[in-house]
Amino acid sequence: MVQLYKKKKIEIIVEAARSRAVIEMVEKAGARGYTVVPQVSGKGNRGVRDDAHLSDVFRNVMIIVIAAEDISNRIIDQSQALLEHYAGIVVVSDVEVVRDEHF
Amino acid sequence: MVQLYKKKKIEIIVEAARSRAVIEMVEKAGARGYTVVPQVSGKGNRGVRDDAHLSDVFRNVMIIVIAAEDISNRIIDQSQALLEHYAGIVVVSDVEVVRDEHF
Amino acid sequence: MVQLYKKKKIEIIVEAARSRAVIEMVEKAGARGYTVVPQVSGKGNRGVRDDAHLSDVFRNVMIIVIAAEDISNRIIDQSQALLEHYAGIVVVSDVEVVRDEHF
Repeated sequence: MVQLYKKKKIEIIVEAARSRAVIEMVEKAGARGYTVVPQVSGKGNRGVRDDAHLSDVFRNVMIIVIAAEDISNRIIDQSQALLEHYAGIVVVSDVEVVRDEHF
Repeated sequence: MVQLYKKKKIEIIVEAARSRAVIEMVEKAGARGYTVVPQVSGKGNRGVRDDAHLSDVFRNVMIIVIAAEDISNRIIDQSQALLEHYAGIVVVSDVEVVRDEHF
Repeated sequence: MVQLYKKKKIEIIVEAARSRAVIEMVEKAGARGYTVVPQVSGKGNRGVRDDAHLSDVFRNVMIIVIAAEDISNRIIDQSQALLEHYAGIVVVSDVEVVRDEHF
């Protein structure tokens, strides 16, 4: 059996216009990689955008990061300021990965 | 460190034609938001559709909901009737989120 | 409340050119289904591809498998040989599902 290593998975769902800022933050926080699922749609509590749009179904992107816990904590902390006035949710969960050195 | 709140993540993978009914059910169950990943493909145990198609690779959508446990339980319960005769799987896991009031 | 069954979720993010080989492996390992999210993009540690490309943002796919633990272990084991010289990460987590017989 292959050795598995505990990591955190952070999923950030955010309006497409905010994805570049999120990715820059993720990289500065020390994450060695990320995956972007483009063009997801969604509905939810959306900060200031709720007031500006007749429709509340948005074009979003989902950014997935697998990282060690200290990096994950940094991303969670910093995501708050970044998303405060924007549509966006941050979801954290426990995962395991095979290659420790990649995260 | 930002405070995190325990929630449930429900992922429903369903044939595209059934997605509207699933989303209506999710909203009636009390979820305050959802994310849709369109145009995923897949293969699996697919109820009646297995008999009607030569190919068993389908166009599906993935609907992701983050919700408090009581709402999650309601969604799981109600998904059964809704998907009984359709292709679809319902996957539940533990997650944490930052903004408690959004879910 | 509907009965839930513990399973493993395996997410394999891999360059698109390698997805067919991964899916064949997943099916041979005994998984009864899988979901493919096409056209995700990403950045990360990428084995030999890091040397061959000026850009390090790639077109990838995400393959999601829900399976019993023994099948999951087989997939994890076999993914190593399959991805050794390719871009790709394998992420494992605990989930619950409603229909035990589907996985």
